[in-house]
Amino acid sequence: MAAPANDLFLKACRGEAVAHTPVWFMRQAGRYMEEYQAIRKSHTLLEICRTPELAVQVTLQPVDKHAVDAAILFSDLLVPLEPLGIHVEFVKGEGPRIDNPIRTEADIDALRPVDPHESLGFTLETIRLLRGELRVPLIGFAGAPFTLASYAIEGGPSKDFARTKALMFDHPKAWHRLAGTLATCVEDYLLAQVEAGAQAVQLFDSWVGALSPSDYRELVAPHTQRILRRLGETGVPRIHFGTNTTGLLQEMKKDADVVGLDWRVDLDTQWDALGPSVAVQGNLDPLALMASREVLSAKADDILRRAAGRRGHIFNLGHGILPQTPVDNVSFLVEHIHRATSSG
Amino acid sequence: MAAPANDLFLKACRGEAVAHTPVWFMRQAGRYMEEYQAIRKSHTLLEICRTPELAVQVTLQPVDKHAVDAAILFSDLLVPLEPLGIHVEFVKGEGPRIDNPIRTEADIDALRPVDPHESLGFTLETIRLLRGELRVPLIGFAGAPFTLASYAIEGGPSKDFARTKALMFDHPKAWHRLAGTLATCVEDYLLAQVEAGAQAVQLFDSWVGALSPSDYRELVAPHTQRILRRLGETGVPRIHFGTNTTGLLQEMKKDADVVGLDWRVDLDTQWDALGPSVAVQGNLDPLALMASREVLSAKADDILRRAAGRRGHIFNLGHGILPQTPVDNVSFLVEHIHRATSSG
Repeated sequence: MAAPANDLFLKACRGEAVAHTPVWFMRQAGRYMEEYQAIRKSHTLLEICRTPELAVQVTLQPVDKHAVDAAILFSDLLVPLEPLGIHVEFVKGEGPRIDNPIRTEADIDALRPVDPHESLGFTLETIRLLRGELRVPLIGFAGAPFTLASYAIEGGPSKDFARTKALMFDHPKAWHRLAGTLATCVEDYLLAQVEAGAQAVQLFDSWVGALSPSDYRELVAPHTQRILRRLGETGVPRIHFGTNTTGLLQEMKKDADVVGLDWRVDLDTQWDALGPSVAVQGNLDPLALMASREVLSAKADDILRRAAGRRGHIFNLGHGILPQTPVDNVSFLVEHIHRATSSG
Repeated sequence: MAAPANDLFLKACRGEAVAHTPVWFMRQAGRYMEEYQAIRKSHTLLEICRTPELAVQVTLQPVDKHAVDAAILFSDLLVPLEPLGIHVEFVKGEGPRIDNPIRTEADIDALRPVDPHESLGFTLETIRLLRGELRVPLIGFAGAPFTLASYAIEGGPSKDFARTKALMFDHPKAWHRLAGTLATCVEDYLLAQVEAGAQAVQLFDSWVGALSPSDYRELVAPHTQRILRRLGETGVPRIHFGTNTTGLLQEMKKDADVVGLDWRVDLDTQWDALGPSVAVQGNLDPLALMASREVLSAKADDILRRAAGRRGHIFNLGHGILPQTPVDNVSFLVEHIHRATSSG
């Protein structure tokens, strides 16, 4: 496979000079697009994830619609839980629900080893098919051990992660066994994605901002860093992302090439604190896309002003696109960023 | 009224030397205590807030049970909304619900001026009665304009504050009018609390961590700083608290004597960044109180180690005590902090 026609995203990941700031959006394929909703009328979320032709189609929808500079594999963070032995369903209006959550050490020991080539082959096939279609780089991804564990333990979304923290605090050995099992699964899954053709990978630790820095360093960082280090051997850029992570970013940047920022930090002072050796992705409030174009442009320009003169900024939201987002505002924002940062 | 027998909390607020680190807990009166649940069997939350004898009784429960170094007035953040003209109910299992949320500029203009001596007199009477009973300092409090506005606009708790941000982003003049009305109400309410005998005040901007620092500075800080400046004239310590505020703390410390930290920051590096002129309150994860005593002590000791050698630390959680907290762990933690920091 040839290099993509537009490799600005990969250049920015490596801190190289770019003709304009590359843009992509977390959850750029999804409910805010009518093309996606049309497919969801006849297929469940998990069916789309597990059917390469559908996953390819949905992955391409935002790439065709907006001039984004990268594609991200359409899938769900929780897809690797099923082969581990954890049954995930998506309930309308509620989100994911797990009917056999992890509640005992025996549940942890009963988790099955996952060969992604065998049980997650649909993702790898999706990646192979996409690489034949795309003229922008393809990002693979997986959920990080804490975020996956929090769903597996709580049985669904959680406000305070009480059960997860109970395991972490009172049974740290069992926690490390669970996190280690998940890390092995995620590591193998991401390596297989790279082998299949993913040109960058993003590790989503979406909910890790619920932890104190001390707990993060002791109970989470060893597992995520092990995954990121192993991926480093492949040479593809590694993006590490979470929300509410302002106090964790110094640790999260270790072994990552790109740090994802939510909107709760000033990009310039945060990047100064992280140092110039790491690239930065973010950091627009997803709700800015619901505002007038005047306000949206002003908020985007504030971020660009803070990033000006630095190499390695990838424009993105601070979290995923919300379902009620007007689709035209997304196209508008991509064009705005390209125009505002074009060097010639 | 004489000075309290135990004034360590007030000394720490002022950065003075103390015999041991003072401790109190946000939501130290509440559902985790059976004495509170007994009263709730025959009274609603709002009835307790509006009946001085009941509010006094509930305020004193944790002071009698644990050796905390401060009392906080028992009330609810949303109590001042009713006299403004916003009807608040508490629905079991759901939290607050507002049947006439603010949805138009006309709704903002229709808000009524609040004389706290008239319509919030029950709070002032509670404070007067408490001062006759307490041997520790009494903290008054109120919700800050953003947090109050978010309930008033969303009609209840919210995940992403979409409607609130829509008003802030697209109708900033209307937003400033609303925030200004709320700020006047909160300012008058807190001044009246101090007149009635509150010896410190805490401004709760619990949900302000949903904002970017730019939006915070432009749309929120002018209103909270106005309240804090005015309260500064009374000479009582002013505590400014929110959650998920790591990126906002430099702005939140302005005009505050004490900054409340949640558990998402390392106390020492954060305090270094804020500078020694401000006192710091926090920063234990509320879920640590659900762990074994060994783990709980270790987590508390980590915070004490980071605070060691500094003046002005008030031990507290990073947010309120959770309903499922074992009550004995709270007593244990107070004793542990006192013992671990006693100088003689």
